[in-house]
Amino acid sequence: MKLAMIGLGKMGINLTENLIRNNNEVVAFDLNEDAKSEAKGLGAEVADTLEGAVSKLESQKIVWVMLPAGKPTNMTIDSLSNLLDENDIVIDGGNTFYEDTLRHNKILTEKGIKFFDAGTSGGMSGANKDGNFMIGGDDADTFKIIEPIFEDIAQKDGYLYTGKAGSGHYLKMVHNGIEYGMMQSIAEGFDVLEHSEFDYDNEAVAKVWSNGSVIRGWLMELAQSAFSKDPDLEAIKGVMHSSGEGKWTLDEALKLQVPTPVIALSLMMRYRSMEDDTFTGKVVAALRNEFGGHDVEKK
Amino acid sequence: MKLAMIGLGKMGINLTENLIRNNNEVVAFDLNEDAKSEAKGLGAEVADTLEGAVSKLESQKIVWVMLPAGKPTNMTIDSLSNLLDENDIVIDGGNTFYEDTLRHNKILTEKGIKFFDAGTSGGMSGANKDGNFMIGGDDADTFKIIEPIFEDIAQKDGYLYTGKAGSGHYLKMVHNGIEYGMMQSIAEGFDVLEHSEFDYDNEAVAKVWSNGSVIRGWLMELAQSAFSKDPDLEAIKGVMHSSGEGKWTLDEALKLQVPTPVIALSLMMRYRSMEDDTFTGKVVAALRNEFGGHDVEKK
Repeated sequence: MKLAMIGLGKMGINLTENLIRNNNEVVAFDLNEDAKSEAKGLGAEVADTLEGAVSKLESQKIVWVMLPAGKPTNMTIDSLSNLLDENDIVIDGGNTFYEDTLRHNKILTEKGIKFFDAGTSGGMSGANKDGNFMIGGDDADTFKIIEPIFEDIAQKDGYLYTGKAGSGHYLKMVHNGIEYGMMQSIAEGFDVLEHSEFDYDNEAVAKVWSNGSVIRGWLMELAQSAFSKDPDLEAIKGVMHSSGEGKWTLDEALKLQVPTPVIALSLMMRYRSMEDDTFTGKVVAALRNEFGGHDVEKK
Repeated sequence: MKLAMIGLGKMGINLTENLIRNNNEVVAFDLNEDAKSEAKGLGAEVADTLEGAVSKLESQKIVWVMLPAGKPTNMTIDSLSNLLDENDIVIDGGNTFYEDTLRHNKILTEKGIKFFDAGTSGGMSGANKDGNFMIGGDDADTFKIIEPIFEDIAQKDGYLYTGKAGSGHYLKMVHNGIEYGMMQSIAEGFDVLEHSEFDYDNEAVAKVWSNGSVIRGWLMELAQSAFSKDPDLEAIKGVMHSSGEGKWTLDEALKLQVPTPVIALSLMMRYRSMEDDTFTGKVVAALRNEFGGHDVEKK
């Protein structure tokens, strides 16, 4: 099929390669010239503007938006609502917060444009080959039109039509919340090993755990890969950034009053890791000093 | 090779089948007559006593102990220290706490008996085929003698010699601690989905997450299997038992002063799940009533 890929970052460029390898035609657009050159090298037709990209498609036009969540995606959806015609199709493959997605769906649906939110997992390598997609969208019949795209670029059994608009991004959000807890738990286990009386080879441990153990999975394989490059991760600072989905999962759990203590704590540990020192620590140290005369460490 | 399997429970019987399928000879012993009959049906030679099992081996005798951790294992190791001769080999494949393992190693080593602690993962299916083993033992040369056994019954790259005695069981303990956190995180995510405004098919979600997503792995495949039998797990009560390894991981983290909040909280949530009501809940409800006149729910 022919479609436009809007956004050629780490995910968009790999999806472009995946699509072209599977005999789709891609019209690629990004503000970054290098990314466009890379896409051209992969066999994409490139466009200089969003409007130009849309004009290179025949109707029923299909536009895949693969941009950072928030302003870049929101602005692009707004623009597409003016550039596209009735029955054209927009796929948002980014990590848009599902409430924004519901708003995008409303904007596009009001103009008769079909909208799908395709939560995309599997990292850069998955975007490039055997990806994972959770796709929401109100129009199940139109989903059948774009389904061959997912058959092409997804892992076998690696895509799911999840029902009405928003449900794809919502599912991807919860997926990422789970990911926070799984990663924190794996990391805590290695932290115990690192401090234990035994002398473990982290790479060897991650490797044996990747082959037949109960906790085997892709995250453990990635741990093996990381330890193979740097056995004790000496070159890396333990600062854990986050890009929103874990927080949104927690926001949602709070809204629904569903207890998710491990996902919540995993997020809090990420926040803790962003600070070299904490005001909490100062307050507790000061209070111990006040009531018990316990020494405080001075700056 | 020829070895004795002491303990024919869920793990021992599957290991027996795995060993025999891979052309090893097994002398099987259990107190349970049905388990012995099953082992006989699988092609094992059965023994009526521990002493009888040992007597059916030629030296250098190899005895695999696959019993519940604690008293059953401890008593058997004690008996074997009297029944075996110098250079004979004992493998403890159970989930023995590593400090007990260090004691067992001392008892056996004092008599010249070689000891290996083989943490065993992969569940019943792994015991039966393509298992996962983390093996500690002070005598690396003797490990080479028993290594063909693990080559036979483990998944490719699914066994690791981890160094001195205790290190195998210690690694398996931490593996299980990680498992607690991973399982709790996965479960919390599904809990959010179950309460969300969208209508997800849990089995389909677990399936798509098992195929190409970042959080893919065996636990997600097991979730798919569970949901395929009972889509909303209506027949199951949310009581989460535990058999020690999570607590030991936390004990160890406390001893080492390594912060493992997610593993700790996963264990606490298991304890919470064992109680229909909590005294904590009563105290908080009573205090809210005391200071704010908030209603309490009466029994």
